[in-house]
Amino acid sequence: MAAPRDREDRKADVLAMLHARHRDAWVATASTSGAAHLVPLSYAWDGEQLVLATPRDTPTTRNLEGNGHARIGIGETRDVVMIDASLTGIADTKDVSTAVGDAYAEQADWDPRSSGSALVYLFLRPQRIQAWREANEIAGRTIMRDGVWLA
Amino acid sequence: MAAPRDREDRKADVLAMLHARHRDAWVATASTSGAAHLVPLSYAWDGEQLVLATPRDTPTTRNLEGNGHARIGIGETRDVVMIDASLTGIADTKDVSTAVGDAYAEQADWDPRSSGSALVYLFLRPQRIQAWREANEIAGRTIMRDGVWLA
Repeated sequence: MAAPRDREDRKADVLAMLHARHRDAWVATASTSGAAHLVPLSYAWDGEQLVLATPRDTPTTRNLEGNGHARIGIGETRDVVMIDASLTGIADTKDVSTAVGDAYAEQADWDPRSSGSALVYLFLRPQRIQAWREANEIAGRTIMRDGVWLA
Repeated sequence: MAAPRDREDRKADVLAMLHARHRDAWVATASTSGAAHLVPLSYAWDGEQLVLATPRDTPTTRNLEGNGHARIGIGETRDVVMIDASLTGIADTKDVSTAVGDAYAEQADWDPRSSGSALVYLFLRPQRIQAWREANEIAGRTIMRDGVWLA
């Protein structure tokens, strides 16, 4: 087992993963009646928020409209980043700036603006971020709390 | 993009993934108040049920005790198996048969019986299984419905 990473290294690894191109996130949401949903979705990172794109008429969009919260896993199951995030906005693909749309398409390698379906962007601000690889990294796994990177 | 797999091939690929050693699943559950939880957990497959092991005092266990349902992702995000499953039982590690405990330890490469913590096995029966790789496999992705493999 490798030595546990310190907080600074974990933050650097998490930011690299958030900026990585052509990756997917596992996005878990819950309905107001308490049904869990889970789906893999492409993502982009704008420096402060995770940006997802999905049809408006999906459980993910409806659940986020209902309670505003998602729990998101990225990375591999043994090199995990877990993000608890709050919805800050939903926008039709035609309503975002060119810069936002281009940045999403560049990072995700897929452009929802040209998909033909009725898609929306979901903007999610991390409230808590945890990162761990193996059992010796469970301690110290929280690197952001209440939306603030821990020093 | 590769040609879409037929149902028979998808089922074979799913069974291979369910029987694979040393893999983790992304396990999404929801609290009765509608908070989504997500965590990677090792799994085993007993031929009919997915077997997980986790401390009794975790959101996953509490949520399953509350409403009995999980949505589980295995594989990579671009070679996905999505399983909607119902809880059929929770057992203290000391209460399962040697055969069940040994089979879990063999497949998961980790033995909860010797962990020292108060762990439980969670037994989950798939109700629906979907499998897809790329956009051309979204059609036909459902290969089990109401607990029955589609013919």
